[in-house]
Amino acid sequence: MTANVHSLRQRQQIREVFGAVSPRLKDVEAFLERELEHALPLVGKVAGYVLGSGGKRIRPALVLLISKMLGYTGERDIRYAAVVELIHSATLIHDDIIDGSDLRRGRPTANRKWGNQTTVLVGDWLYTRTMDLSLELGDVQIMRVLTAATLQMIEGEILADQVRRRLDLDETTYMDITRRKTAELFAAACALPALFQPSTLHLTDRLAAFGRNIGLCFQLIDDALDFTSSRSELGKPVMADLREGRITLPMILLLPRLGQDRRRRIEEVVATGEFASISEREILEMVTTSGVLTDVYRRAADYADEAVALTEQFPKGAERDALTRVAALLLGRRS
Amino acid sequence: MTANVHSLRQRQQIREVFGAVSPRLKDVEAFLERELEHALPLVGKVAGYVLGSGGKRIRPALVLLISKMLGYTGERDIRYAAVVELIHSATLIHDDIIDGSDLRRGRPTANRKWGNQTTVLVGDWLYTRTMDLSLELGDVQIMRVLTAATLQMIEGEILADQVRRRLDLDETTYMDITRRKTAELFAAACALPALFQPSTLHLTDRLAAFGRNIGLCFQLIDDALDFTSSRSELGKPVMADLREGRITLPMILLLPRLGQDRRRRIEEVVATGEFASISEREILEMVTTSGVLTDVYRRAADYADEAVALTEQFPKGAERDALTRVAALLLGRRS
Repeated sequence: MTANVHSLRQRQQIREVFGAVSPRLKDVEAFLERELEHALPLVGKVAGYVLGSGGKRIRPALVLLISKMLGYTGERDIRYAAVVELIHSATLIHDDIIDGSDLRRGRPTANRKWGNQTTVLVGDWLYTRTMDLSLELGDVQIMRVLTAATLQMIEGEILADQVRRRLDLDETTYMDITRRKTAELFAAACALPALFQPSTLHLTDRLAAFGRNIGLCFQLIDDALDFTSSRSELGKPVMADLREGRITLPMILLLPRLGQDRRRRIEEVVATGEFASISEREILEMVTTSGVLTDVYRRAADYADEAVALTEQFPKGAERDALTRVAALLLGRRS
Repeated sequence: MTANVHSLRQRQQIREVFGAVSPRLKDVEAFLERELEHALPLVGKVAGYVLGSGGKRIRPALVLLISKMLGYTGERDIRYAAVVELIHSATLIHDDIIDGSDLRRGRPTANRKWGNQTTVLVGDWLYTRTMDLSLELGDVQIMRVLTAATLQMIEGEILADQVRRRLDLDETTYMDITRRKTAELFAAACALPALFQPSTLHLTDRLAAFGRNIGLCFQLIDDALDFTSSRSELGKPVMADLREGRITLPMILLLPRLGQDRRRRIEEVVATGEFASISEREILEMVTTSGVLTDVYRRAADYADEAVALTEQFPKGAERDALTRVAALLLGRRS
């Protein structure tokens, strides 16, 4: 029940923050639907399943909100909001294959439902099609931002795969991976609207920095929630990261604070993917009582603060205010 | 030994046909090497392994030869010859994952060596990086040709995966898949040079048609060789297509000519991937004595003829002559 209340409250907050762009978000959905209708039936089915899995559309909403803040009145915001969501979906599809994940947002993953073969190809199709969607308007600069972000995401996933099950993963490497895997697409989503009009080009880097900061905040909260949330809130098993051998910031900060025995028992979880040597409850207690979670939230708050500070250089108004609330919302998120 | 003699003779013929562009082919290799040096180490290693696996560089050579035929004197031919080879490599990498292939050109496949996880991501990286390489020069029209061909290839692979192990696969569907999977990248490689200069734009479609025809010829010969060649010539097991459940033209033409018993025994091979119910030698005898192989070669020859006929509209000279020899070479290929 708690899960539903959290989830409902959060969805409501998201709706409020992005309220000004909700009619345009519907246009984005229509754009995505049209796009999938024209794809091969199997591609449409698999991609539709992933796109329809209850994602909160935060990235597209950011594209729309920032476009509005910059006084953009054309149609590119809808197209590129859709493109960013398609890139995000392609990444999720391939990441779930890489991680061998069975569940996402409470439903079987696409690879679980259609097999790795089909889903690799659907991911490929989505990546390539997004390029095509940008090319239709000849937006070279926009495409460069998108391909650069996509390359960073893929490289982030490659690096993450290389350090899987490595308990000696250091914080700097971890933050580099997190920036690439999560923050660069947020950065791209926020920077793109500046490229829609020559008059806003000078805001590109600042908007990217804003996006990068909320992206880092978003991911650190995600890492913490993987420990503290319930299965029903997460829509996947608790401590899925640890199960799949992904060492995240809470664990990186916790390990040096542990004695050899406990460390060894956690090593076993990471090696086997099972909580035989130590229970989830014990691990949760450790990250909570050790102060590690507080540290993680503090860092996430620092990124959110940095993002909010950056908004001071954006055009004043309701949209800018909404952007500062987005940062607070991502920080306060419970699922 | 026969394999080596064939292979050597063929490589020599290829060198002769593409002789006029061999210095530029070296520049393409240098371009590819530089590209991989700047990638993540793991990406460089895996992609270098695939690129260095003894591919004949037919697609890049076509880009260079046709550029020369059209009197192009800039540097785009080298870049896009490399891009086409990178796209081809990305496709091979993902296709080998999809097919679960262990061997390609006599060596373990990348997925066999580095696992599916890493190789999915390396393929993703290559696809995305090729887009970036086109964007650096702002060549929107060229990129559109490349992304369209890439989409067709991915769709071809998806369709191929859907009809895997389906003995009722009809010829029309099969030829559509073949066009997408193989011929469209040949078409793109041949059409691109027309886009390098405004003065040759009018040749784009004819060059694409030339490429499509030699691509179809290439693939039909490949399908036949999968039955008739030896393991050492192929660099992978004989009848790998059948083993992996891929029904190709020789089988499509053979099946209606067989009695129920033989048909059922072939069904078993396709279902199990093993030649327990019927030997490779028996199958080879069937495709040979039934006249099926002759039919396949005749069709391949028709595509080669069509390609040669199209060259009449190209600028006269040594390069055009070389193009007609390419068609003959692809048709007469033994491995």
